[in-house]
Amino acid sequence: MAATSDRTVYRATTTAPVNIAVIKYWGKRDASLNLPTNSSLSVTLSQRSLRTLTTASCSAIYPAADELILNGKPQDIQTSKRTLACLSNLRSLRQALENADPSLPKLSTLPLRIVSENNFPTAAGLASSAAGFAALVRAVADLYQLPQSPLELSRIARQGSGSACRSLMGGYVAWRAGEREDGSDSLAEEVAPASHWPEMRAIILVVSAEKKDVPSTEGMQTTVATSSLFATRAASVVPERMAAIETAIQNKDFATFAEITMRDSNSFHATCLDSWPPIFYMNDVSRAAVRLVHDINRAVGRTVCAYTFDAGPNAVIYYLEKDSEVVAGTIKAILGPNTEGFDGPFYDILKNVTASVVPLEKVDSRAVEILKNGISRVILTGVGEGPISVEDHLVSATGDILAS
Amino acid sequence: MAATSDRTVYRATTTAPVNIAVIKYWGKRDASLNLPTNSSLSVTLSQRSLRTLTTASCSAIYPAADELILNGKPQDIQTSKRTLACLSNLRSLRQALENADPSLPKLSTLPLRIVSENNFPTAAGLASSAAGFAALVRAVADLYQLPQSPLELSRIARQGSGSACRSLMGGYVAWRAGEREDGSDSLAEEVAPASHWPEMRAIILVVSAEKKDVPSTEGMQTTVATSSLFATRAASVVPERMAAIETAIQNKDFATFAEITMRDSNSFHATCLDSWPPIFYMNDVSRAAVRLVHDINRAVGRTVCAYTFDAGPNAVIYYLEKDSEVVAGTIKAILGPNTEGFDGPFYDILKNVTASVVPLEKVDSRAVEILKNGISRVILTGVGEGPISVEDHLVSATGDILAS
Repeated sequence: MAATSDRTVYRATTTAPVNIAVIKYWGKRDASLNLPTNSSLSVTLSQRSLRTLTTASCSAIYPAADELILNGKPQDIQTSKRTLACLSNLRSLRQALENADPSLPKLSTLPLRIVSENNFPTAAGLASSAAGFAALVRAVADLYQLPQSPLELSRIARQGSGSACRSLMGGYVAWRAGEREDGSDSLAEEVAPASHWPEMRAIILVVSAEKKDVPSTEGMQTTVATSSLFATRAASVVPERMAAIETAIQNKDFATFAEITMRDSNSFHATCLDSWPPIFYMNDVSRAAVRLVHDINRAVGRTVCAYTFDAGPNAVIYYLEKDSEVVAGTIKAILGPNTEGFDGPFYDILKNVTASVVPLEKVDSRAVEILKNGISRVILTGVGEGPISVEDHLVSATGDILAS
Repeated sequence: MAATSDRTVYRATTTAPVNIAVIKYWGKRDASLNLPTNSSLSVTLSQRSLRTLTTASCSAIYPAADELILNGKPQDIQTSKRTLACLSNLRSLRQALENADPSLPKLSTLPLRIVSENNFPTAAGLASSAAGFAALVRAVADLYQLPQSPLELSRIARQGSGSACRSLMGGYVAWRAGEREDGSDSLAEEVAPASHWPEMRAIILVVSAEKKDVPSTEGMQTTVATSSLFATRAASVVPERMAAIETAIQNKDFATFAEITMRDSNSFHATCLDSWPPIFYMNDVSRAAVRLVHDINRAVGRTVCAYTFDAGPNAVIYYLEKDSEVVAGTIKAILGPNTEGFDGPFYDILKNVTASVVPLEKVDSRAVEILKNGISRVILTGVGEGPISVEDHLVSATGDILAS
């Protein structure tokens, strides 16, 4: 990096992945620090399918106030406490470096221009905040050349969006709830890299747009405050499942991984239903996906797929590469080959699948009908890596905003 | 009753009501004795709307094997352990009377002919076993002229169908789980007679026929065995709610009664969803009814209605007579006046309601649409009395089966 001069534009660009939890984060013990009531665990999804691309830049030529442009739209940073918290944490770390080594350019004093774009359609209803804040933190950390590890940066990303801390790493990632009041031990760590169990695949069934129920930040606090079953989940159900699913991941034991994943999704949605007023994220299409997964597993005679649902009706179905035809192939046969989203990096193995591998008479016909009508697109993906540093900058060398 | 002779046909006929729980019975601690994991509480519904009519008769002229005819169809008693348990208990009590007073006719030795009819359509998807077993036990007890109180008979009816024990009484009825292994203290008792709070009304929204999920007997055992949240519900959530709702009933405090009713229904369905495999009884139409109830309460600014769902998608909505127009009237305006079931004994107050009392813009429009398409009929009813002895026998004086 060149020595600072009035016109220098410093830049760093990164991609960051989406992650989908198999042990769900739901409930904060501290809302401003985003400290969770329980640990969670997720699979980082391949950036060949879904990714956020973010360039962080700083320069003396920028207007004095930090700027953030998401998908082409300038955001009001000053009203986003979460973004402010991330940026202020990152600046402090940079300042410490600068204090220790006066030869470093004083980047911490320069205004930021951060430009970010998602490659996935907003209409897909995928939570983009995890990938977004992970990319923001990673890009600014790279810009500032911070020596902190992803584990240490996860403490910062967590303050942007809880689940963002899990998108700083690839593979299988645990977010330890921690116990300290200041949140210093509430961190994400890699349980296993993607290379440990690279065969994990996921198909996301995108449920046709529907007005969303309660936003998750609000919903989870309602659950903590009102559900009489939630405390049991946080105190005993999740800790047991965290231990068991980590072992299943180490052993590449899909059947156990799958059962825990499904049960934990159900448990999370049960505590939503038990909230007051009740919160419903799953609808009849979601329930049809649940039915289909159970029917496929029963028809095959072993557990080949597992559903999980976040705070919305979309189904994410995990399976292993070797069962692609029986799982994703059956879904393709049900939805029809013209359904949007089958093409892409994980499609090869399905190209020649035209008929269902699972006999359709072994699958609930009502569920099939509901899925046919209710699923507007799929996203075919798999386990993947953490953020990747790239040179596709969204800000030019002279500080202009570029289209990706 | 005439002295016994070879051709004498002894008869007794009773009606029995349906009851709808506000604290749900879900889970058995002993399956053969139908002993529940937790206490429950229900409102007995008026027999002017829904009732089972049952004649119990016995005679030496009948074939040797006991007979049971339900809605015109002969049942195989020998394969129904539950019916056998009820009849054998009732016969023992009769035998004790006969042993104590040898002048009594030996009815306990005569074959039974029991004929029963429901006045509600099977298609309505209403659980008929509670009213059915309550009527059977009450009719045979009357036939045998047993001195036992409804509380004592509830021990017998419970063995036919758990919730049947609550249909032996009118008004507001608690079924105490009891603690003894033999179930001798698992009994139903009246918390308050219908006359204490006669203004309670209920409208049942019958959801268009759909294949039912798991039958309740099987479902509740799955929940007990697999849900990691269920134990908390049974051990602490329900006992607290039982105490609170009994107080609310004593105080005729509808707002508290309503909130506990809704929360307990949600808690019950949450434990179903938390079962493995998960059990879903509520569907998108049910969820629309939940939304509507919350929207009406919000629009009115006080709690005027409460939903509850049994092991199926039908919504039962409780409200008070004085709020008939705002609750049932709004539902009538949404569903349209031609919806089947508005007519009947509780209709007068709604006759002139044509427009919604609650401005429809204050109600979720998607919920309204879903309800319009998904509700096939309603049943308008209210709190009512327990079984009533009547002379509309379904068996003639010469032992022939009659149509009601």
